[in-house]
Amino acid sequence: MNGAESLVKTLTDQGVDICFANPGTSEMHFLKALENPRMKSVLCLFEGICTGAADGYYRMKGTPASTLLHLGPGLANGLANIHNAKRASSGMVNIVGEHSASHLKYDPPLTSDIEGLARPLSHWVRRVESPQSVAWDVSTAIAKASEHPGQIATLLLPGDASWQEAGDAAALVPPPAAPQIKRPEPARIEAIAKVLRSGEPALVILANRATRGRAVELAGKLKAATGCRLATQFFTSRIERGAGRVTLERIPYAVPQALEFLKGFKHIITLETTEPIAFFSYPDKPSLLKAPGTVVHKLAEANEDSEAALDMLLYALDAGSATPVLQARAEAVIPQGALNPASIAAALAAALPEHCILVDESLTTGRETMGLTVGAAPHDLINNMGGSIGYGTPVATGAALACPDRRVFCMVGDGSAMYTIQSLWTQAREGLNVTTIIFANNSYAILKAEYANMGAGAPGPQALAMIDIDRPSIDWLAMAKSMGVPAVAVDSAEGFYKAMANSAREQGPTLIEVRLY
Amino acid sequence: MNGAESLVKTLTDQGVDICFANPGTSEMHFLKALENPRMKSVLCLFEGICTGAADGYYRMKGTPASTLLHLGPGLANGLANIHNAKRASSGMVNIVGEHSASHLKYDPPLTSDIEGLARPLSHWVRRVESPQSVAWDVSTAIAKASEHPGQIATLLLPGDASWQEAGDAAALVPPPAAPQIKRPEPARIEAIAKVLRSGEPALVILANRATRGRAVELAGKLKAATGCRLATQFFTSRIERGAGRVTLERIPYAVPQALEFLKGFKHIITLETTEPIAFFSYPDKPSLLKAPGTVVHKLAEANEDSEAALDMLLYALDAGSATPVLQARAEAVIPQGALNPASIAAALAAALPEHCILVDESLTTGRETMGLTVGAAPHDLINNMGGSIGYGTPVATGAALACPDRRVFCMVGDGSAMYTIQSLWTQAREGLNVTTIIFANNSYAILKAEYANMGAGAPGPQALAMIDIDRPSIDWLAMAKSMGVPAVAVDSAEGFYKAMANSAREQGPTLIEVRLY
Repeated sequence: MNGAESLVKTLTDQGVDICFANPGTSEMHFLKALENPRMKSVLCLFEGICTGAADGYYRMKGTPASTLLHLGPGLANGLANIHNAKRASSGMVNIVGEHSASHLKYDPPLTSDIEGLARPLSHWVRRVESPQSVAWDVSTAIAKASEHPGQIATLLLPGDASWQEAGDAAALVPPPAAPQIKRPEPARIEAIAKVLRSGEPALVILANRATRGRAVELAGKLKAATGCRLATQFFTSRIERGAGRVTLERIPYAVPQALEFLKGFKHIITLETTEPIAFFSYPDKPSLLKAPGTVVHKLAEANEDSEAALDMLLYALDAGSATPVLQARAEAVIPQGALNPASIAAALAAALPEHCILVDESLTTGRETMGLTVGAAPHDLINNMGGSIGYGTPVATGAALACPDRRVFCMVGDGSAMYTIQSLWTQAREGLNVTTIIFANNSYAILKAEYANMGAGAPGPQALAMIDIDRPSIDWLAMAKSMGVPAVAVDSAEGFYKAMANSAREQGPTLIEVRLY
Repeated sequence: MNGAESLVKTLTDQGVDICFANPGTSEMHFLKALENPRMKSVLCLFEGICTGAADGYYRMKGTPASTLLHLGPGLANGLANIHNAKRASSGMVNIVGEHSASHLKYDPPLTSDIEGLARPLSHWVRRVESPQSVAWDVSTAIAKASEHPGQIATLLLPGDASWQEAGDAAALVPPPAAPQIKRPEPARIEAIAKVLRSGEPALVILANRATRGRAVELAGKLKAATGCRLATQFFTSRIERGAGRVTLERIPYAVPQALEFLKGFKHIITLETTEPIAFFSYPDKPSLLKAPGTVVHKLAEANEDSEAALDMLLYALDAGSATPVLQARAEAVIPQGALNPASIAAALAAALPEHCILVDESLTTGRETMGLTVGAAPHDLINNMGGSIGYGTPVATGAALACPDRRVFCMVGDGSAMYTIQSLWTQAREGLNVTTIIFANNSYAILKAEYANMGAGAPGPQALAMIDIDRPSIDWLAMAKSMGVPAVAVDSAEGFYKAMANSAREQGPTLIEVRLY
């Protein structure tokens, strides 16, 4: 068994059985090792698709995927979506090919400081020093990636460590211990219970694992027992929401609206997140969004167990038997006529099938209207946590591979879609159940608003030319066709509804161009 | 004048009058400053297009362009082509937006260690500390980028340094001094003259500025006077070649052929490059390609003046009046029938118009046949120096903006084209005279050869699935249409010739799919 085979064996032995790959010459032995039938390898035509797909996979499965990237530039192309994954607390194991040590000293053209490139956005970086060590190295990477919150683990694999004999080191690596999640301190729980008993207005902000499964239900009990309100940040890694679930409010994105939303609370209680901060800085707006005098209490730190924290808090309040209010199913009304944020949200609410996954990268369209889908069939909502554009279609790709029996709807602005549009090809190749919804307004529309928010006034012709992406407008039907994805364009609310509903009845990917221009 | 205006004024005052931009919220004041009529701003839909275009611009103009990138992830998306530019000795000034210092401390979602990301691939990195300092900072960046060889200068621009008052600092920045280029030591010249006088077989390897203009002519004199041979590495930043010029041989890419090419030389004399090294390491092949016993002599270091070195050497040899052999114009024969590397090269040789620019990212097709175009009309040939895939179409975009009166032919494999295909949109918007030639073999064909070269044998089904990019095959006519570029597909040598000749008669971009499957 050579080093590459030892690596793939260890990955699969420890449950990492998917690899999003964009290989190069130095990874040929790794490719050969991918013949291992326990490993599914998925080709992506750009590395940002690999890392974004690994993020989407983790968000749905909760266990890390691996990526295969070609040297420093291959890693660099994946970094923007690694940034987003890191901010989403998604774990992943990146395998980055590297020149053999004997070759590296001559500084061949593809040489770069891979550790230097990896470190700013990885929690853990290691260079494999020998084929014998690779099994231990990747086992450590998997353990790191599997921590709570998920970590970015990046392993550099020199060519000679791939192709040289590794012996049976892979057989000697012990199975990974189950990740331990820290429980919060009882004293902290007692202090927060006291706050909630006071009856002063309190907002509980939930994030990461707290927005899923039993934790949300427990939060609902807390609300029922104490009258606190429940919210998420504007962006959340994954929320289980919709009919039959406890509904979490959403803190607005725009600074003035966020200030308004938060002004009445005497207390903010956080689970796996921080107090609300503005996404960007603006000349005349604050960074911290809470009202003066609001006190912030950390119920669970990012690395702690929110479910345990909520259990402990409910116990302290003697509220474990409270009955949470569950979201009612809103009557599905198929909207008619013009496309606008409200009719788009209504069409979504009516069309979303039960247990679908909604990946949202629509920065303007739908930004303030997602609340209208809260009474839709139960579904998972995924947001961009790092703010780097081009996360949507790769994350949708990975989510669809994690959950092959659930349809993924990926809502993305036309400007955003163009960063990583190569996702469509992987969706076509793998026959993934992804409906890509392109909101085509021929513009980085969000920047028009931000230009004004920044106090820069109305954009002049040159600035507008950098914001509008017409001249030429992108032909989305041709774009989808170029990569083998069937597509349809709609220009009415009922057309949008119908296209979504149709896509949910078919197998495989589809693209809907929603014409807003 | 605010900081952003001061920055743009300084750029244009000092001759940097083009900006390849992909802006975000934190760069809105920079966008406003781009209204400056002396600055041309070019929107790119992905940051790798910005940085690749800046590379192409420098290769043709010899002066740096600027880029505008959005925070750490925007820079990250541009890094792969920054790597290629760095290896091509191309200077560029990257302006990277950053949060205001007052906001940064809250670690908002788009925060990352931008300096950490920039450093591995930049020669110079600085963070603007105040609006007053921005003019000096960017002036220093321009001076750095303008050195010989060109340098990557990366300047971080916090939002508040953009929007706050800068005063008239920009008016006080002195004009840049002309970059000084070091002359080689006379003693070294004398030693090399002695080698050449000995009559022992010698190969002169030219790179960077030595492959252009008068330096090539001087090398031709050297060859005529001493019998040395002249060559380039397999990849060169830009070569002026074709009929009427001194022809430089090309050291082969594949290790066995390179060893064979180099085996007869007792001496290797280098200008702005190193001795030949293999691009990758292979289990049973050497990294250093020269024959045992070959002595390497540096005639000009990377930062020295090759033209001066050649002048000095010719003077030492009393060979200044030697007559170089100039390349004869090969009779243009329009090939007929099947497409293969030879007929493709013949069609190119016949179709290339005088003074066109040929950007080559065709890794398999044409790799060993570019020699057949050496008797074509005089043209410039540009190669990928860093080995990071996806350099071709962005570099062609920048080259076309640098030389609007010359047609650019960009030869690119289908696999390579998909990394940065968003270039087509910028070419359409700007009406650039670029003919993109897609060699469509539905495969990362080079990897099939490399799999065997690595000693991995014949690829199995899983490995093949990671190398073939059929299922689905990319519809290049639809891809071009999606971004507003007219396109044609050809499946014969005469069809290929005709499509190229047609494109050279029209204005604006076009795409030719060369069907090899």
